[in-house]
Parts: sequence; structure tokens; C-alpha cells
Amino acid sequence: MSGDAQTVGALGERALIARLSARLAPPPPWVLVGPGDDAAVIEPGRSQATVLTTDCLVEGVHFRRDWTPASAIGHKALAVNLSDLAAMGAVPRALLLSLILPPALPLADFDALLDGFLALAAEARAPLVGGNVSASPGPLVLDVTAVGAGVPRKLLRRSGGRPGDELYVTGRLGAARAGLLMRRQGLQAVSDAEAECLAQYERPAPRLQCGVGIARSGGAAAAIDLSDGLAEAARQLADASGTGVVIDADAVPIHPGAALLAAPDDQGRSPAIEGGEDYELLFAVRPRFKRRFLSAAARHRPLPVTLVGRLDHEPGAWLERDGGRQPLPHGFSHF
Amino acid sequence: MSGDAQTVGALGERALIARLSARLAPPPPWVLVGPGDDAAVIEPGRSQATVLTTDCLVEGVHFRRDWTPASAIGHKALAVNLSDLAAMGAVPRALLLSLILPPALPLADFDALLDGFLALAAEARAPLVGGNVSASPGPLVLDVTAVGAGVPRKLLRRSGGRPGDELYVTGRLGAARAGLLMRRQGLQAVSDAEAECLAQYERPAPRLQCGVGIARSGGAAAAIDLSDGLAEAARQLADASGTGVVIDADAVPIHPGAALLAAPDDQGRSPAIEGGEDYELLFAVRPRFKRRFLSAAARHRPLPVTLVGRLDHEPGAWLERDGGRQPLPHGFSHF
Repeated sequence: MSGDAQTVGALGERALIARLSARLAPPPPWVLVGPGDDAAVIEPGRSQATVLTTDCLVEGVHFRRDWTPASAIGHKALAVNLSDLAAMGAVPRALLLSLILPPALPLADFDALLDGFLALAAEARAPLVGGNVSASPGPLVLDVTAVGAGVPRKLLRRSGGRPGDELYVTGRLGAARAGLLMRRQGLQAVSDAEAECLAQYERPAPRLQCGVGIARSGGAAAAIDLSDGLAEAARQLADASGTGVVIDADAVPIHPGAALLAAPDDQGRSPAIEGGEDYELLFAVRPRFKRRFLSAAARHRPLPVTLVGRLDHEPGAWLERDGGRQPLPHGFSHF
Repeated sequence: MSGDAQTVGALGERALIARLSARLAPPPPWVLVGPGDDAAVIEPGRSQATVLTTDCLVEGVHFRRDWTPASAIGHKALAVNLSDLAAMGAVPRALLLSLILPPALPLADFDALLDGFLALAAEARAPLVGGNVSASPGPLVLDVTAVGAGVPRKLLRRSGGRPGDELYVTGRLGAARAGLLMRRQGLQAVSDAEAECLAQYERPAPRLQCGVGIARSGGAAAAIDLSDGLAEAARQLADASGTGVVIDADAVPIHPGAALLAAPDDQGRSPAIEGGEDYELLFAVRPRFKRRFLSAAARHRPLPVTLVGRLDHEPGAWLERDGGRQPLPHGFSHF
């Protein structure tokens, strides 16, 4: 039982759950039953609907343990779920964590996974109320369910867009893709911009405050997050809204680290447009609510919002560049 | 693209999600946003709290594909979660399903997993509102989150027991363990009792109606499900309630198929007491509410409830047999 060699398999399910539970902060008042019972119980807020999302990270598919520190894996498993709540404009209310662990996983990595997960959970004021720990003969898997709350008519669906809506994106794109390329090629960050790219790839910041603030303002009609890239997000929002969509390639805000490391290739394919894992938000905004939207967005500076396109009567998904247009590329898929 | 050889990997994530979505029934009125958005949105019932549980099945740990039909795996992944809602006395409200799939999984197995899952979901009136599909280089994993609802003061916690409470168990125990042994030894069922054991192992019936009915009646003070066996359930309920516990070995109702196939071993270890995966419920009942409890339980006949023990002032967890007592054995753990 030396500290270095200790593995999760040597402890077993109940000891791991006890180890995890010992780290949890006292729950907020809306948690009526926390971890340790057959199920958790939370009070929904007054007049609030319950918002539910789940997403997993699978070793060898979504991350590699030799590229990414365990604490970043824990952070990211939660961040991708909080990003979905942000896209709805929902406030986080509770989390469930399913840990599927190879028994040889070092206990230090288990602890670091929790470090990353619990630090982001604390920042988002989202209590971990339940979950499970299972052994697996296969890869490490973190599966998270995030539960949020929001007033139903204020929540932002993908389907709320109409022809004529303007499309705005938060942040500057392509950084996560550039960070991935840096890890793949074993490059160290030699500038602040590159360091930001690595951070954006490993510890993306879900745009919760911005998503909730804009949803509450009533300034946006629809939203989606950019987990599969801007092109795919724009296509899906337009599909759900029953409109066409045009993205202006020259307007897309590109992260300075991405401009250097992940320039468009020969076919003009750009990581800022196609690259996945930018956990930014895309909003559809009615022209008459543009001022309201921009005013709400300005409260979240220095996070920029940029006009990148519009929803259209004409069907189809298009990328405009230099006066011409080509079909909007399909986005990132892990399968 | 021949039907026989087709795999989930050949279809990919989006086609699989479309295939799944096409099978979903129209959602009930409390589902405000169903699958296909960044997150699902449901209305909590009036004055109801939200009950949350998650549990997964991992191939090679919780099931083997060569022992268990894919539809039974889909059924069981949901049943273990509904059993947790049943133990709280919560009515199912929504489900999330995370499918982590080896790309070589035959598409027919994918369809059969959904057959089993969706049939039980329909029976429980629990709509599938979201989830995700991911590839994996490892084993098949089904991770389910079940969301339920109930009036907070009526929900049954593990911690509600007091010294003097009587312990009642639903059903007849040991059948799942006997079914597992039959599968392990390649035995076919040659009697109705044995067929019931196989069914109990592969397609356990969560005791939702009984759990909800008894919770609403106010007849029970605490409850837990028997996923890890009667001994472990009794110990955990007593630990959470801060009491001791005594189980009367001779009173434990043993399934007739289990009595034959899974008799106690030389040390008197009984699958009905220690065997996991009996998804029955254990209730702690105050003596003054005994009549109310039995009256509520009688509405769920032919499902029996049986007095098997009591919570005690004296600390410790004991198994009484033939006038003597021994420490209550520890239950089943998969890790």
C-alpha cells in the first residue's frame, strides 16, 4: 500500500466513494438529500423548469491520459456539460458523476480528476449530489449529468431562430483546435496566445454567466454551444429553426494562437470554423432586439461577441468568403 | 451495407442518434424540450421535488454479451435506476441515456438494447429526453440517469429508521443470484421457478408502484433497494439511521428457484441474504404505522412483503439463526 503504487482497484468502490464524499462541501439549501441515499433530492426553484443534459469523456476517444493532466480531464468532463446548460441559459443546480475506472488507475490520478471536477463545480456553484463508481476492463470514462434551472419562457432553444436573425458568437475561435495540435506535436507554448490555446483545449471555460445573462435579458431568440465547431453549430441551429444560414468567413473572430498554429489548409478549411471543442456560444438575435442583446452581452466583457452571419429564408447552409459562397462544411464528429 | 454485418461504427454518432430518436414516442406534456437540443427541459410537478439517480452497466463487470441478450441489457440498465427511484418512492419523470459503444457492436444489438430500454421506459411512463452516443475502444457501457418527482416530506430516505422499527422486504430473494449461476453454468430452465430466476436476473422488475404507493401512504419511515443484497441493504439502512440491525435468517423469503439452485454453502452463506441484484425493496416501519404499511402493501399483491428483522438500540448488524447470532455478512460489490 505504498503511496506511489496505490491504485483505485486496491481501494474498491465503497472506499473510493467515501474518499470522494469526504471532499464535498456542505450542500446548498436546495439540496434536500445529497449523496449516499438511493437517489438525491433537490428543490426546483420557484416557477423554474428543470434542465437536463448528459455527456461523457472516453479515454482514447475524447482524451489521452499521456497528453492531458488528470485534473484537466475532470475539469473538461464537467465543462462540456455546463456549456450545454449555458447554451440554454440555465443556472446549474446539481451534478451527477459516473466514474468508470480501470482498476490500475493510480489513486493520485483519481484524486486529480476530482480536483479538476470539484474546482469547476465550486466555481459554477453546482453541488455534486450523486453518482457512481464502477470498475471497467476498458478505458477511463467520466459521464456527467448536469441539472439546471430556468424560467421556461426564457430558456434558449435551438429552434427559436427565424429568417433575418443575426448570428453572434462569443469569444475567439480555433484555440481549442490549436491546443490539440500543440499537444499532438509535443509543442510547448512560447507565447501567451499559445498558452491560452492549450488552456482552452484542456480547461475550457463554459460561458455560464453570459448564457444565463443573455437568456434573462430576452435579447436572443435561440442559442447553441460550439462543441462541434461553428459550422456544425450554425447548421444545427438553422435546421432546428427551419431556416437557411450564411456564415461570413471573414467576420469569424479567430484566436491569435489559432491564427498562427492552425491556419486554414489548402482547401480553405479553417479550424476556427470547423474545429470542435470551442465551448463558446452562438446566438440568433432578432434585428429589433439587437440593442438589448448587445447591451446584455456587454456586461460580460472582456468576453467579446461578434456578428458572424445570419439566418436566411433561402434553405441551405453557406459560407461566404470574398464575395463568393461555398457549402458550409460539416463539423467535428468523434465517432 | 449488408444487414448482418452492419455495425454501429459504420453508422456513426449522428446516424445512431437519428435512429434512436425515430423510435421515441411523442413526449408527455411535462416535457417542454425533448431530445435534440443542448439540453432537455421538464416541468417539475406542483410542490414536487426532483429526485436524481444514475447508475451504469459495464460489459465484463456487470454483464457478458454472450450470457445476456442485448434487449435484457437495455432493460436492466434502466431497471437498476428505476429501482433507486422506487426506493425513494419517487414517480419517474424523465430519463437520460449515455451509450458508450465499441464500433464493432452489431447494429442489431444496438437496436435490441433500445428495445429493452424503451419497452421498460414505456411501462414506467418515463420518457427518454436526452443522452449521448460515444464510440469507445473498450467495453459496451450503458449509463442511465433517472429523474423522478415526489412530495419532499413523503420521500423515503435511508436515514428515517429508528430503533424498534420493523424491517419488511418485498418479493422472494435469491432469484437473481440463482439466475446468474444458471447462466454461468450454461443451464437451461427446467421449471417455472428456474425460468423466474433467469428472468429476475436478466429483466428485474423495479418495484415502482409498490415503492410509490407505500411512500404516499406514510406507512414506512425509511427504505432502500436490494441491489447489493439484503445483508448490505439492512446494514446501510441501519448505518444511515444510526441504529443497529438484526435480520432473522429463518424469516427471509427465499425464491423457490433459489432454494434449489443456490442453497446456503458450508458456512451458511445464503444467496438470498448476500446475493446482489435482487431489485426488491426493504422498508423500515414504525410499530404504530404497521397497519397502515401492511394495508398499503396489500394493494400490490401478489407481490409479498415479509417481516425479516428490526432496527435496534444496540449497535452492530446481526444475523439471527436458530437462536444464535452472527455478524451480518457484507454484501455484494462489483469492483
